[in-house]
Amino acid sequence: MPEPTPPAALPSDPAACPPSCGGPRVRAIPPGEDRERLMCPDCGFIAYQNPLIVVGSVVTWEDGRILLCRRSIEPRRGFWTLPAGYMEERESTAEGAAREAWEEARARIAVGPLLAIYDIPRISQVQLIFHARLLSDDVSAGPESLEVGLFAWDAIPWDELAFPTVHWALREHGDRQGRVDGAPAVNPAPETLARWARGP
Amino acid sequence: MPEPTPPAALPSDPAACPPSCGGPRVRAIPPGEDRERLMCPDCGFIAYQNPLIVVGSVVTWEDGRILLCRRSIEPRRGFWTLPAGYMEERESTAEGAAREAWEEARARIAVGPLLAIYDIPRISQVQLIFHARLLSDDVSAGPESLEVGLFAWDAIPWDELAFPTVHWALREHGDRQGRVDGAPAVNPAPETLARWARGP
Repeated sequence: MPEPTPPAALPSDPAACPPSCGGPRVRAIPPGEDRERLMCPDCGFIAYQNPLIVVGSVVTWEDGRILLCRRSIEPRRGFWTLPAGYMEERESTAEGAAREAWEEARARIAVGPLLAIYDIPRISQVQLIFHARLLSDDVSAGPESLEVGLFAWDAIPWDELAFPTVHWALREHGDRQGRVDGAPAVNPAPETLARWARGP
Repeated sequence: MPEPTPPAALPSDPAACPPSCGGPRVRAIPPGEDRERLMCPDCGFIAYQNPLIVVGSVVTWEDGRILLCRRSIEPRRGFWTLPAGYMEERESTAEGAAREAWEEARARIAVGPLLAIYDIPRISQVQLIFHARLLSDDVSAGPESLEVGLFAWDAIPWDELAFPTVHWALREHGDRQGRVDGAPAVNPAPETLARWARGP
């Protein structure tokens, strides 16, 4: 388990390779390791590359309607998504989810327990999707959204959702019927996907 | 929410800044963003820095004893820890936890549900700690361990644990008395820490 105190330079800090070097550009197995890393052959700096965390939430208003954002950016411009994005440094997961709701929908939210944790190893991504309550229904599109809206379950644009995990998280939310305790969902099993495909 | 398909070069890929550049070395706010990033002034490349994921597990043998590893590396050399470490690219969180158990304790494990998710924003780290079952008690020290062992609850070296989150995860495990369902723990509240401090 890694250390709890910050080293002078994080292993992933590109600033640790001085400008006088050509930069990390050679794939080689560093001493004592078991896999190739991107290294600088001039100073030996190792540019570790690690998975990224996406933080987001299924945000509900008092009447149960769900906050969705229509993307103004590629990929999937024009499709609907949850407020979510890459976690930043020096924030907690819940702070990140709240920040994304503000950035994408000018929504003030109270972040609750974890609804789902999705692994997407193909793109080295872990998505942490929380339950959240909307604190005011005064929402509006941020720079990454064309529009935002509150959707009753039957009004969700199922055929215009941006990504599979948006679909999964919404269906998990629906399955739980307002309960926010319990274990978080993980990537759905084939049976679950088949059940969801049969209808709402 | 970010895209589900890999871009040609991930934003964090140092290889995206060509060797002919001086490398990302200037802190500036990129166009359309709201915070400083480390940028290359030659090509405009942005070296995003994001939180790291630690994956690990509380691993139990059939008799309830718990697997701990005594660190052979700094920081906290000589102190006891859970098998855990930085998640690698192109693996799932559970695969990462299993890999770490093998690397640190030559332990083959079956990774179960999430026991805890700990935020450590000070060092931009998110720790995902799973329940896990040991599949064989034939364990031995890997390169990052001086020794490994299976500990009954009363034999856990509480005063020689390497990090606060090791303590938290073990106490959470104890509180749950073998149950692996339910919501994962988060950073303990002051009351919880006070209760734990009063004794086992």
